[in-house]
Amino acid sequence: PQYQFLPYIDKIASAKDFSKYNVLIALDAANKARLGRISPAMDVCPITINIDHHPDNSDFAKINWIDEKVTSTSEQIFNLWKLMDIPLTKEAAICIYVGMLTDTGRWQYSNTTGHSLKVAAELLDLGVEPTEIFEKVYENFSVEAFKLLTAGLSKAVFELGLGFVYTIITQEDLKTTGAKMTETETLVDMLRSVKDINVAMVLKETDKHETKASLRSHPPVNVGDLARAFDGGGHDNAAGFVTNEKSDVVVEKVKRWLTASFS
Amino acid sequence: PQYQFLPYIDKIASAKDFSKYNVLIALDAANKARLGRISPAMDVCPITINIDHHPDNSDFAKINWIDEKVTSTSEQIFNLWKLMDIPLTKEAAICIYVGMLTDTGRWQYSNTTGHSLKVAAELLDLGVEPTEIFEKVYENFSVEAFKLLTAGLSKAVFELGLGFVYTIITQEDLKTTGAKMTETETLVDMLRSVKDINVAMVLKETDKHETKASLRSHPPVNVGDLARAFDGGGHDNAAGFVTNEKSDVVVEKVKRWLTASFS
Repeated sequence: PQYQFLPYIDKIASAKDFSKYNVLIALDAANKARLGRISPAMDVCPITINIDHHPDNSDFAKINWIDEKVTSTSEQIFNLWKLMDIPLTKEAAICIYVGMLTDTGRWQYSNTTGHSLKVAAELLDLGVEPTEIFEKVYENFSVEAFKLLTAGLSKAVFELGLGFVYTIITQEDLKTTGAKMTETETLVDMLRSVKDINVAMVLKETDKHETKASLRSHPPVNVGDLARAFDGGGHDNAAGFVTNEKSDVVVEKVKRWLTASFS
Repeated sequence: PQYQFLPYIDKIASAKDFSKYNVLIALDAANKARLGRISPAMDVCPITINIDHHPDNSDFAKINWIDEKVTSTSEQIFNLWKLMDIPLTKEAAICIYVGMLTDTGRWQYSNTTGHSLKVAAELLDLGVEPTEIFEKVYENFSVEAFKLLTAGLSKAVFELGLGFVYTIITQEDLKTTGAKMTETETLVDMLRSVKDINVAMVLKETDKHETKASLRSHPPVNVGDLARAFDGGGHDNAAGFVTNEKSDVVVEKVKRWLTASFS
């Protein structure tokens, strides 16, 4: 909901009949499955283009342009714009800036390069207001989401011997606070911000009796490996999984995995 | 304490006898009083230089270089380095980057310009690791500080009609969590991150029976004016004051000020 301010967001339409389109451009999708409902169109469209920055991209289109060195697919679009020598509008600059900002975690992840900051500088020169963007993207909690975040923080359990912290969000928490399960995105990053914590985990008990885990780590812990042990996936330091097991069972298994890996 | 990682921080020495120095350079100080214990040296040193970016700088030295257009005095130092045509070392780049990062609130405040991001890009090209810096500066909470933060968030009171949220940190909170009063810096920013909140306030009950207020606002609310009403001061959207009045009295007075100003 915080992205409603993006220019032209109201122009986004949902296609139903894919047979009438000649070109399909996939952005920021590592594989065909990530296209979801649209993936059948990949086999139908005469021209398919895949623009992405994920190193594990599966080259699923006819034309594949994968650049692992950029912050984001937004930065690729900027580079393309430059190559085509079309002047950027302020509206386009805002969209590209937001894509780069969020994919670098506010210019903080290791994909933040000198080139990416030079691009950002150029976007600012085109009229992007960084303060306004930050407020809209990051200072936009509902009171309910704030209360859910607080509940999650209050229940944080520190296992300092393992450099591990976790918390569990239950259906009861959603009822008490009035928030939605999706409004817990920043919680795991906040848990990781504690000194000497190497792994932070937020477990969410869904209404389908599943347990969803969001994981963050600092090197040398690779939570991508941890997530794969639960048939999940992700990056080295940001990953996740979904399981039918109860949250307390998951906690015990994760603690055993950490103990086995780092002792 | 999070700045202990800065290169050469162990070389910082404290001067006692000011009469033996010929040059005094004041950095990032708006007026003589801000120099504290060192301010008498301003009258003794033959050459005094004042390098600052605050618009209300009082030109208190013999040579005054005030540049309001930069993010920070660190950015001025970068510009000076360029002018003098001395190659920047990685160590200097780290220090300048940290100064710019923290004075822009992670490239978010309105002082973030295209030029400042170009400077940041150049610093990254010199070997600054943004992820490492972010972790050291911003992901360095002690468990005690985390618990104090959580306590503060849990006690947040929303006055949505006034667009106002506040919380109170007591001596009891320090005892319960084991944290120090100084470890509450980020709390007020977190309170402000709630949608439709125009003013966030953290009140700290000190061990000297004073009440310290930290204030943040979004335009049009000017918490600088609010702070001055309590003999405090600061910027339009970040300000503070100290008073002998009890915290509950302060809350009532602030609510009256907001009601009078915005209704």
